[in-house]
Amino acid sequence: MALALQLGRRGQGRTWPNPSVGCVLVNEGRIVGRGWTKPGGRPHAETEALAQAGRAARGATAYVTLEPCAHHGKTPPCSQALINAGVAKVVAAIEDSDARVSGQGFAMLREAGIEVETGLLADQAAYDLQGFFLKTEQGRPFLTLKLANSLDGRIATSTGESQWITGPDARRMVHAMRARHDAVMVGGGTARADDPSLTVRGIGTSHQPIRVVVSRRLDLPLMSTLARTANEVPVWIAHGHDADPMLVESWKGIGATLLPCDSDGGHLSVVSVLKALGAQGLTRVFCEGGGALAASLLAADMVDELITFEAGLAIGAEGYPAIGAMGLNHLAQAPRLKLMSHQRVGADLMAVWRR
Amino acid sequence: MALALQLGRRGQGRTWPNPSVGCVLVNEGRIVGRGWTKPGGRPHAETEALAQAGRAARGATAYVTLEPCAHHGKTPPCSQALINAGVAKVVAAIEDSDARVSGQGFAMLREAGIEVETGLLADQAAYDLQGFFLKTEQGRPFLTLKLANSLDGRIATSTGESQWITGPDARRMVHAMRARHDAVMVGGGTARADDPSLTVRGIGTSHQPIRVVVSRRLDLPLMSTLARTANEVPVWIAHGHDADPMLVESWKGIGATLLPCDSDGGHLSVVSVLKALGAQGLTRVFCEGGGALAASLLAADMVDELITFEAGLAIGAEGYPAIGAMGLNHLAQAPRLKLMSHQRVGADLMAVWRR
Repeated sequence: MALALQLGRRGQGRTWPNPSVGCVLVNEGRIVGRGWTKPGGRPHAETEALAQAGRAARGATAYVTLEPCAHHGKTPPCSQALINAGVAKVVAAIEDSDARVSGQGFAMLREAGIEVETGLLADQAAYDLQGFFLKTEQGRPFLTLKLANSLDGRIATSTGESQWITGPDARRMVHAMRARHDAVMVGGGTARADDPSLTVRGIGTSHQPIRVVVSRRLDLPLMSTLARTANEVPVWIAHGHDADPMLVESWKGIGATLLPCDSDGGHLSVVSVLKALGAQGLTRVFCEGGGALAASLLAADMVDELITFEAGLAIGAEGYPAIGAMGLNHLAQAPRLKLMSHQRVGADLMAVWRR
Repeated sequence: MALALQLGRRGQGRTWPNPSVGCVLVNEGRIVGRGWTKPGGRPHAETEALAQAGRAARGATAYVTLEPCAHHGKTPPCSQALINAGVAKVVAAIEDSDARVSGQGFAMLREAGIEVETGLLADQAAYDLQGFFLKTEQGRPFLTLKLANSLDGRIATSTGESQWITGPDARRMVHAMRARHDAVMVGGGTARADDPSLTVRGIGTSHQPIRVVVSRRLDLPLMSTLARTANEVPVWIAHGHDADPMLVESWKGIGATLLPCDSDGGHLSVVSVLKALGAQGLTRVFCEGGGALAASLLAADMVDELITFEAGLAIGAEGYPAIGAMGLNHLAQAPRLKLMSHQRVGADLMAVWRR
């Protein structure tokens, strides 16, 4: 199952709107098939593993990270494929929460006389597949917030200088993290200030996540790197209903996808933005700031995982804060996260925090 | 030598103005004596170890973390004591930089026919004794800056709420750190806002470091905890030459030690403050903020070690910053520190950074 989970992680960022599942077929102690969900969500992991195993699937045990599907979608149900192949036993980490599957995959298998076991490494599977579950259950993707700042929580000097605070190892790791998400997201201020490309570079993958900018007024430069490359790698812009229709048309014209969202006081409601992204099928979104968007996400309790990179330098209180104003007066109101892990990355300190 | 270093660390915070040294006597593979500098700096580690060894010191090897002294101070020189005891060999981690000793201890031993070896674990000894060396060479103590903040670098909400951001394990560790320093230091703002006692509590030691407050105008409440307890645990106040003489007399009257220091623009020169503390004999000072003092120390490149405790909560940009304004415009001007270690402490993340 640990291997199946590893395989499942290979597809992360590429299988949306489907979950990225891993499957390992074992026959008499020998691995006879391995599969993971392919880009776009098809073929499914089970199909891949069964194809690899061929006749060796007969009498095998299938380790799957998620309950095999039971419904006829664009592919025949995997449960039926496992039955047809003569698999003797199915060990699934976790039940699917999709109403079309939930429990029905297991039922179909059991009816065919296949032994079914669940719960093995369920915690890990639940974490890996959390984006898919959140989309199915709450209509929004899993949100990772990444902050890369000085040891006093600053992302730029008062003059706007921000390159570079963290080192090359941390930046390379961020590219790998982007690649494991369906989309990379920044706020309008960051898009204006940094003119970022938000692509995955330098780690030997051709996969590019969707690029999302959150900008209520849509006041983003049409000469920016994002605008110029919108036909190469998708650009989606979450904007307010009150954005200038001319700007809406301009961005549509250069190939961007426009997502009108509700506002909440002065700026866009991040809940509305995440629902819009979920409705588009996204399961895993990687937000890289800036301070205002990070603060809104934290204040709305929408951060599922926070990854901090801290560099060994101090910028001082005039610098730009990694997390902007949150409007809270009491410590009891502050969103709290649990420290999951910490490690050195180059000269920087990386920590992972979860809700 | 590793044991001698460990013993030497036991005296940290209690031996100023003297260094805290460790000594182990080994005779035919057996430890016959162990010693470390006693509170106040006397007896010296060698004297202690020799007394413990008695006649077993004859022919023994002495492992000492610092070159044995050669001058008649308040005690006879340790080098002479080692000679008198008939020690056969002295292994010292590092040479003393005090002009009265430097090289002369080794010379005295060699003249008496004792084999002398140096350099074993010299790096560790240099680090442990750095406060003593800094005081001798630069006239200022080793400075540890401790920051305990939210993951966005805040030490209080906008309303001033600061208890508690980090957890009980981190706070207990801070008390142990205080005990290993000669003095605990805070800025006037922190003294006013928190009314701290700055004592060591809850870790089973009766040793109390000096309590230092840095306040240019000496505008500290005379009803504060520090003022009320100034006769129990020493309170030193570094203030500007322009402080109200009435306040100076009041604080003297309640038992505080007043240290007039130079100003540098709006506030006290931290270099002047540290020189004043060095002149008083302090070798190790533990600064606990607030933001303005932390920023001044970092900007003046006076932070030898920075210890950060980061709690898993976000306060937002309205909160008080752990490091105040530093007046820098470019990243190249930002003081840089190296990550030495990191560990989980309770629910918090602790990191140690050095210049």
